[in-house]
Amino acid sequence: MKKFDHMDDKGKINLIDTTSIPESIKEAEASGFIHLKPDTIRLIKENELEKGEMITIAEIAGMQAAKNTSSLIPLVHQVSLTGVDVKAYVYPNGIEVKSVIRSKSHTGLETEALTAVTVALLTLFEVCKNVDGTPVISDIKLTRKMHEAG
Amino acid sequence: MKKFDHMDDKGKINLIDTTSIPESIKEAEASGFIHLKPDTIRLIKENELEKGEMITIAEIAGMQAAKNTSSLIPLVHQVSLTGVDVKAYVYPNGIEVKSVIRSKSHTGLETEALTAVTVALLTLFEVCKNVDGTPVISDIKLTRKMHEAG
Amino acid sequence: MKKFDHMDDKGKINLIDTTSIPESIKEAEASGFIHLKPDTIRLIKENELEKGEMITIAEIAGMQAAKNTSSLIPLVHQVSLTGVDVKAYVYPNGIEVKSVIRSKSHTGLETEALTAVTVALLTLFEVCKNVDGTPVISDIKLTRKMHEAG
Amino acid sequence: MKKFDHMDDKGKINLIDTTSIPESIKEAEASGFIHLKPDTIRLIKENELEKGEMITIAEIAGMQAAKNTSSLIPLVHQVSLTGVDVKAYVYPNGIEVKSVIRSKSHTGLETEALTAVTVALLTLFEVCKNVDGTPVISDIKLTRKMHEAG
Amino acid sequence: MKKFDHMDDKGKINLIDTTSIPESIKEAEASGFIHLKPDTIRLIKENELEKGEMITIAEIAGMQAAKNTSSLIPLVHQVSLTGVDVKAYVYPNGIEVKSVIRSKSHTGLETEALTAVTVALLTLFEVCKNVDGTPVISDIKLTRKMHEAG
Amino acid sequence: MKKFDHMDDKGKINLIDTTSIPESIKEAEASGFIHLKPDTIRLIKENELEKGEMITIAEIAGMQAAKNTSSLIPLVHQVSLTGVDVKAYVYPNGIEVKSVIRSKSHTGLETEALTAVTVALLTLFEVCKNVDGTPVISDIKLTRKMHEAG
Repeated sequence: MKKFDHMDDKGKINLIDTTSIPESIKEAEASGFIHLKPDTIRLIKENELEKGEMITIAEIAGMQAAKNTSSLIPLVHQVSLTGVDVKAYVYPNGIEVKSVIRSKSHTGLETEALTAVTVALLTLFEVCKNVDGTPVISDIKLTRKMHEAG
Repeated sequence: MKKFDHMDDKGKINLIDTTSIPESIKEAEASGFIHLKPDTIRLIKENELEKGEMITIAEIAGMQAAKNTSSLIPLVHQVSLTGVDVKAYVYPNGIEVKSVIRSKSHTGLETEALTAVTVALLTLFEVCKNVDGTPVISDIKLTRKMHEAG
Repeated sequence: MKKFDHMDDKGKINLIDTTSIPESIKEAEASGFIHLKPDTIRLIKENELEKGEMITIAEIAGMQAAKNTSSLIPLVHQVSLTGVDVKAYVYPNGIEVKSVIRSKSHTGLETEALTAVTVALLTLFEVCKNVDGTPVISDIKLTRKMHEAG
Repeated sequence: MKKFDHMDDKGKINLIDTTSIPESIKEAEASGFIHLKPDTIRLIKENELEKGEMITIAEIAGMQAAKNTSSLIPLVHQVSLTGVDVKAYVYPNGIEVKSVIRSKSHTGLETEALTAVTVALLTLFEVCKNVDGTPVISDIKLTRKMHEAG
Repeated sequence: MKKFDHMDDKGKINLIDTTSIPESIKEAEASGFIHLKPDTIRLIKENELEKGEMITIAEIAGMQAAKNTSSLIPLVHQVSLTGVDVKAYVYPNGIEVKSVIRSKSHTGLETEALTAVTVALLTLFEVCKNVDGTPVISDIKLTRKMHEAG
Repeated sequence: MKKFDHMDDKGKINLIDTTSIPESIKEAEASGFIHLKPDTIRLIKENELEKGEMITIAEIAGMQAAKNTSSLIPLVHQVSLTGVDVKAYVYPNGIEVKSVIRSKSHTGLETEALTAVTVALLTLFEVCKNVDGTPVISDIKLTRKMHEAG
């Protein structure tokens, strides 16, 4: 029967021991969406034409969080990420954030990719919450995962 | 015309200066959901009957993240939270996480509440991702926000 | 019947909600000991006569850890400490570390005091471990706790 | 004559330069004990039968601290740990915490092992301190250390 | 004779005990400069016209560092900052960074102001170092310090 | 035409993808200076004869910051440093801080070297600011950078 990766034979949850797993290049992509009202989007677009700071700040916050994933999520291993790309795309009904994470690692980088996306979205939430009312964050998911031979 | 809270007159984004805003007791509640397959839920329930560690770990990760929100999200002020309650509820099609955040503060605690929820959900993602395939996180939103007189 | 402070009625563990507890000045003192061989102590004393760096580094590490207790220990509230005093005393059979922690706070500062002591002792362990063999850390305990009216 | 590892020729303490030391698989085990009254242990056991949260929270806190050792203890190198196992065992007079740390590294992982143990014990202290009176933490020591050829 | 603030009667350095000092509103301003070649400045200006990301990233890094000063600088107290303003100004021979820090606090906020400035300048160094050769950071100093009655 | 390293083809700033760059041993040296009045220097020297704590604390703060550079400066990669040497030298008109950083890495360690120096200088600023008036920090620059074949 199937078993959670982090669970040992007695059902205890642990950091998976990856000591004997060879490192190889991993890549993971994720995306997520924050729903915003048309008025909020209009305000963002006006701002982006001039300064564009909001998008940049969200992307940087996502990038910094990705590097910090193992402190944030207890069962994630420490990995020195060699590629972190977080980008936000403005749509008429909200903003989509996409991340691409790469590194040579013992384990996959899925949770790093989702962490980058969610923290960027939370940063957009922080800036837009009062203007917009209550934005909703959704569709946070892995969009691609690749393991190259190292 | 409306303006983003964090924006000054020149359109630059900044930490809002709250020095002269009196502190009062704030409360914010948020929730979010991770969609999981029935087989994953069955496995979680079997585990919960015995050990229940997965739910506890997710709740604790959410709690610790809430306390750390201002390091994670650039435009959030440092607040010493006096109440952080993060709870996960298992449903047939996934797990809902709810948070209640309280403190005496210059500013609202909305982003703290959402951060608690999302980090708990990311922890569940990390544990379930391989067994489940690709879980999707959604419906992260503020459910209540209250300002008492301090 | 008695109940753990951090436990709610359903037996779930939580950060205690201190929102309605008035702040008052709290103080806590703790101590702990690292057992070292006479040869190690002799080496430390020679070093102390000249540079004294080892003791200073341990004290500073303990102080920094005290400020960081709520990140380290999940159920501890964030408190801005107003007094942190960590001092190490060299004895013929080891080193004693003592801490005094003070702040205006909703809750006691006992765990902060113990955290300061243990991290200072772990720093001494790191420096001495190879020269000494295997030092043992013990007697980490609260030595005094005081609540003034705020 | 013997010299502390972290000391250079002039008696100054430094992070040891490990650049030219080849990496190999290291393992370290440590243990420690928190003394608790029989009444406290009885309460813990009742709780463990139902929820078991206290033990899980302590283990997770120890695991997270191990990953964070180099931020906590100044003279410890940054190592991406590949195995962190922290377990607590309830006895009639207290709780023992054991850790096993593994990674490919330039240096030993002794202090990481002790850090995992002490932070788990401090978490138990935080939960039990008021019910128990003043618990004492002791016997924190290395129990095994192994260097495999990498 | 004069004495360093952080020093006790025996010459030991400590976090100053501010428990009995009443809180009042403090403000501190600092500035600093990174010297860059005219060619680098031209490149920055072209970039700023379009995206302006570099300046925003530096300002945000400075802001986040200010909030984190007490973890970075051992003898600084934890203060929840209520105002953090970091701005960069491009000149023909380099970039000036200015910060304004405000909070109700037991102690002054001078080091927070300088930390904001230096981390913003280090971020500019990171982006410009290869294009410019070796930029030099200088003139980091307090420009104003104010204590209002709280 | 020249381009900033961190910029992609569309002018967006990103963490450079170093996944396919082979690791090799890197070394970087930096220095910086804090200007202090002769009276302050005299006080420091008296203190250094006895305890020498101020210099040690500044050096340790610089060392800890170097290990933490990627959290502090957004565009810096995570690198596990294998050598961090931070030393302060007292002159009649101020204190010079020098750092040497070494590691096997995909990228250079210039910003880590500057971070070590600036945080050590900020620590000296914190201790000396009230006795001295307003110390000025300057001349923070790279003094050497070396890439060995790995």
